[in-house]
Amino acid sequence: MSEGTVQPYGERAFLVGLDGGATGTAALVGDLEGHILGWGTAGPANYHTVGREASSRAVGEAVRQALRSARVSPEQVRLLLVGVAGLDHPRQDGQAYQEILEATGLGIPFQVVGDVVIAWAGATLVLPGLGVIAGTGCSAYGMNRRGETWKAGGWDYLLADEGSAYWIGLEGLRAAMRAYDGRGEPTALLAAMVRHYRLADPLDMVQVAYSGHFHKAEVAAFAQEVTRSAGEGDPVARQIVVRAAEEVARMVVAVIRKLQMEEERFPLGLSGGVFRSGDLFLSRFMEVVRQVAPQAQIGPARYPPVVGALLYGLHLLGRLTPEVREAVAANTAGLLELLRWKGAAL
Amino acid sequence: MSEGTVQPYGERAFLVGLDGGATGTAALVGDLEGHILGWGTAGPANYHTVGREASSRAVGEAVRQALRSARVSPEQVRLLLVGVAGLDHPRQDGQAYQEILEATGLGIPFQVVGDVVIAWAGATLVLPGLGVIAGTGCSAYGMNRRGETWKAGGWDYLLADEGSAYWIGLEGLRAAMRAYDGRGEPTALLAAMVRHYRLADPLDMVQVAYSGHFHKAEVAAFAQEVTRSAGEGDPVARQIVVRAAEEVARMVVAVIRKLQMEEERFPLGLSGGVFRSGDLFLSRFMEVVRQVAPQAQIGPARYPPVVGALLYGLHLLGRLTPEVREAVAANTAGLLELLRWKGAAL
Repeated sequence: MSEGTVQPYGERAFLVGLDGGATGTAALVGDLEGHILGWGTAGPANYHTVGREASSRAVGEAVRQALRSARVSPEQVRLLLVGVAGLDHPRQDGQAYQEILEATGLGIPFQVVGDVVIAWAGATLVLPGLGVIAGTGCSAYGMNRRGETWKAGGWDYLLADEGSAYWIGLEGLRAAMRAYDGRGEPTALLAAMVRHYRLADPLDMVQVAYSGHFHKAEVAAFAQEVTRSAGEGDPVARQIVVRAAEEVARMVVAVIRKLQMEEERFPLGLSGGVFRSGDLFLSRFMEVVRQVAPQAQIGPARYPPVVGALLYGLHLLGRLTPEVREAVAANTAGLLELLRWKGAAL
Repeated sequence: MSEGTVQPYGERAFLVGLDGGATGTAALVGDLEGHILGWGTAGPANYHTVGREASSRAVGEAVRQALRSARVSPEQVRLLLVGVAGLDHPRQDGQAYQEILEATGLGIPFQVVGDVVIAWAGATLVLPGLGVIAGTGCSAYGMNRRGETWKAGGWDYLLADEGSAYWIGLEGLRAAMRAYDGRGEPTALLAAMVRHYRLADPLDMVQVAYSGHFHKAEVAAFAQEVTRSAGEGDPVARQIVVRAAEEVARMVVAVIRKLQMEEERFPLGLSGGVFRSGDLFLSRFMEVVRQVAPQAQIGPARYPPVVGALLYGLHLLGRLTPEVREAVAANTAGLLELLRWKGAAL
């Protein structure tokens, strides 16, 4: 601890939970009793999207801001629990985030887990149940009463992200091209594509797509056009949304079956923008899940991933007693509104 | 014409047809009467895969070799007709191939068209009918008796290559991951993936896929494992192959309908490795096409794309009379075996 620093908490120990999302980063500082003491936000931290340097900068900024607001110094922090998308490439990403975290210069011991793990922790308070994310990417994760865990989907856009915003956007673009060249039914998605990407002609889409500047986020952005067209009744768009709901449900069902939770009552917490895309998606998703697990308690994740990061950090430190769990829950409510208002990565 | 060069054909005019494929490049020199006089081969010329410099080198090498063997100088060549995959991004690729062709230093006037156009020209001798390619990429092209043309599919791997080897390979990998995490049925493709990519564990596939070195060709290579597993009776692999056949047939059907050729008798020439993947694919493909166009004469393309390039060049020069067409056909037969033996991009 540096000489002369004001340390209102004396020798107490703390931890930081961080959610490094695709659109922004949020960090929370808590103590080992479950009090939430400070928070910080920064830009996106997914290095696949923004590069390692920007990722390191975002993490450092969010953590330092959170520590400042909590009046805690890095030396007092026992653990930085980082949840990030794309950690499903264990070795490669593990190494990358090791370097990204070290480059922050924070000097805090850290642990990195996938974003669906902190989503699950926020949804269940690290108790039996499932979390599912359907944002740019898509995956499901859960734990049963025996402490066994399983993950399905989330192998990123090439191998398995069916039902994600990226997938919905790409299926929408493909349907537009099928309508254009005569392979598929006419659909409002063709006009939507021309409008969304400001094309002079549908064929110009080919140039946009292979320009080298057409990244995951640009594809995922078209998902909104697909759900809008679906909402306006376009049958082709509706079909894509329904298939997306079934694919996301399939991830959830795979986890439920692997963990043998079909007959149990458990929370299933939903995170990500795709779940807010309309009733068509949500109702089909729930229908498919309930066929397999009729007692699943489906709803928005109880707490956002950044709170899940804090909870999971406490769990790893062996401090997540029922009392601490209650303390986190009680402390989170007010903070939530504040974080939402700031547009943090919830 | 450079001083002192032997010019056995005096002041006669010639043209060159070139097929710049994903796996190799082939060039043919012909005269305006349809005689084939020389040929050359080189490595792949698709700049998306090999880069512009290598593409330019391959084109230059194949053309120079062909000209040498024909004892024709570049100054005597009226037109170089280049057919390349991925020319479906009209402006971007048009500009790129302009620069690639200029960098060859050949100084021959050239015209670049999509690979499916020369495939069609080889299949029909530039007469009414269709050509369809199902290789790494996939597309269909045709012309009716009124001279109207249409193309379907072939908007490359993001927008529309359903049924291509890339698509089959990727669907195979996705099915393997679905079997792994419990979303899908068990399939021999999981073991095939582990074997094909020499993985210690199925999860290592995630690392392979996002390593930055996992290109289209690596994905397309897995198509062979899918068709092999299908041949051995694996239901999941069989389903992928059947869907691929339906997707390729859908491209053909879209062209037939746009050109109003349902009731006509016309050649439909098949090119590309996917058509050689087994009876399951071919029989389902033919079944779907025949539902719409019962009189289509389905079979391997009559002449390979490189001959199609020569024919299409003659057509553009206004020289493709019935006599010239017959001359090309008569001249091609013997050459074909030779080119096949050399493993050129046919």
